[in-house]
Amino acid sequence: MTQVWCNGAFLDETDARLSIADRGFTLADGIFETVLGVGEKAIWVAEHLQRLREGAAVLALPVDFDDQVLESAVTELLRKNGFPRSAIRITLTRGPAIKRGLWVEGKATPTLLMTCAPTATLGALQRVIIARSTRRNEYSPLSRIKSLNYGDNILARREALVRGATDALMLNTKGHVACATVGNLFAQIAGEWITPPVEDGILSGIARAKILPQMNVREVSLTEADLRSAEAAFISNSLGCYEIIEIEDRKLPSCLDEDLVAALYETP
Amino acid sequence: MTQVWCNGAFLDETDARLSIADRGFTLADGIFETVLGVGEKAIWVAEHLQRLREGAAVLALPVDFDDQVLESAVTELLRKNGFPRSAIRITLTRGPAIKRGLWVEGKATPTLLMTCAPTATLGALQRVIIARSTRRNEYSPLSRIKSLNYGDNILARREALVRGATDALMLNTKGHVACATVGNLFAQIAGEWITPPVEDGILSGIARAKILPQMNVREVSLTEADLRSAEAAFISNSLGCYEIIEIEDRKLPSCLDEDLVAALYETP
Repeated sequence: MTQVWCNGAFLDETDARLSIADRGFTLADGIFETVLGVGEKAIWVAEHLQRLREGAAVLALPVDFDDQVLESAVTELLRKNGFPRSAIRITLTRGPAIKRGLWVEGKATPTLLMTCAPTATLGALQRVIIARSTRRNEYSPLSRIKSLNYGDNILARREALVRGATDALMLNTKGHVACATVGNLFAQIAGEWITPPVEDGILSGIARAKILPQMNVREVSLTEADLRSAEAAFISNSLGCYEIIEIEDRKLPSCLDEDLVAALYETP
Repeated sequence: MTQVWCNGAFLDETDARLSIADRGFTLADGIFETVLGVGEKAIWVAEHLQRLREGAAVLALPVDFDDQVLESAVTELLRKNGFPRSAIRITLTRGPAIKRGLWVEGKATPTLLMTCAPTATLGALQRVIIARSTRRNEYSPLSRIKSLNYGDNILARREALVRGATDALMLNTKGHVACATVGNLFAQIAGEWITPPVEDGILSGIARAKILPQMNVREVSLTEADLRSAEAAFISNSLGCYEIIEIEDRKLPSCLDEDLVAALYETP
């Protein structure tokens, strides 16, 4: 039976239940992190917990546990579940509403939940389209934190699958290419690696931060025309790097060294 | 004990629990409606159910119950709870995830939940600011349906309270004034009533649709400058109309006839 951790206690997944008044459920009032586990080792866990706190600060969400407790819980969850490779999801919401309304003064009793699921490979090959159904909102602070508000990303991903692709790249409201539906975008143009800046409405990915110096990447806004001239491209997130082998029917060559990527995700 | 309705069954609020894998909770993958109940009578329930289906279609969410069943459930919920004035919330999500991922092929088992809370007056007076912390995304279909993605509205509402106001008006990414955090905006300018069009990234409110012909309102984009010249303004939603008596410290006069508003919400 898969084990989860909820507000300080381990329990069987099937015994864990949420209040129907949880503001994560009713209003997407929360954030999450996805941490890679390799055996019993959580990759970049300190960085994830720091980003969790930064996101919580944006939403004025209390985090009632210190990092040491959370880090131990992650490790223990990996040990209890024993998957060779795991995705740990840490979800933090404002918890059950005290009463109706968008913002209610008074002490919140947050929900802090960690779940663990097996995950497979480092990175499947991606055939992407540019989403036309929706866009990232770079005017919203939510575009720069890992909030629960994933509706637009779901729409973009569904569009990708309907159009025969595996993922979508999302434009922001200015028409700049921002990111994929669950990862940051890197494109090689005239020999140089480029990635959109945070101001374009992207999540400041933890893998992205590791890749920036490693591959000498420049942060600059990307237009659709830029993307058409890209020689290679890939997507990164905390679980892996994913080569883009096709953008809207244009083929791209393989561009990542598997050993280098593996080393990246296994280096603290 | 407050009664709720969940996937076809009535139960005590405290007995109702959600799966931690519910995609409404993990990814805001769902929609909702708020229906006014006056005694045992649900106001505009057919319109709400129609909008629920329209929102569900945008997200490709199945609705597994027909309108007659849903309408009976709403009425029965009002009867069981017996509040003089109620807010019924109908929440529809894609239900527990089959597996990890933004979009998973396969049959969803949606969560359809109705809750009932007492609600008081028809409309409190509002002192509003224009939110500077975030904006509506008129490029997203979610801006035009009542999706669970309420993070931006929460940010705007919190900003309003921090700045000493009761609510915020939200701009869209073009800088047009779109709506309040939980209602549509009406402004009187040079004697004429104006409301922003749906294309500006607003929910097509049910009260708004009733008010449009009644007050001979014109749908046109509103700039901040337009708003500064407004002679009067109010906010509408399915629970009531709320006079705006102050916009960013500028006082506005009372503008609504209480009897007319009461009649509006009690007419089918």
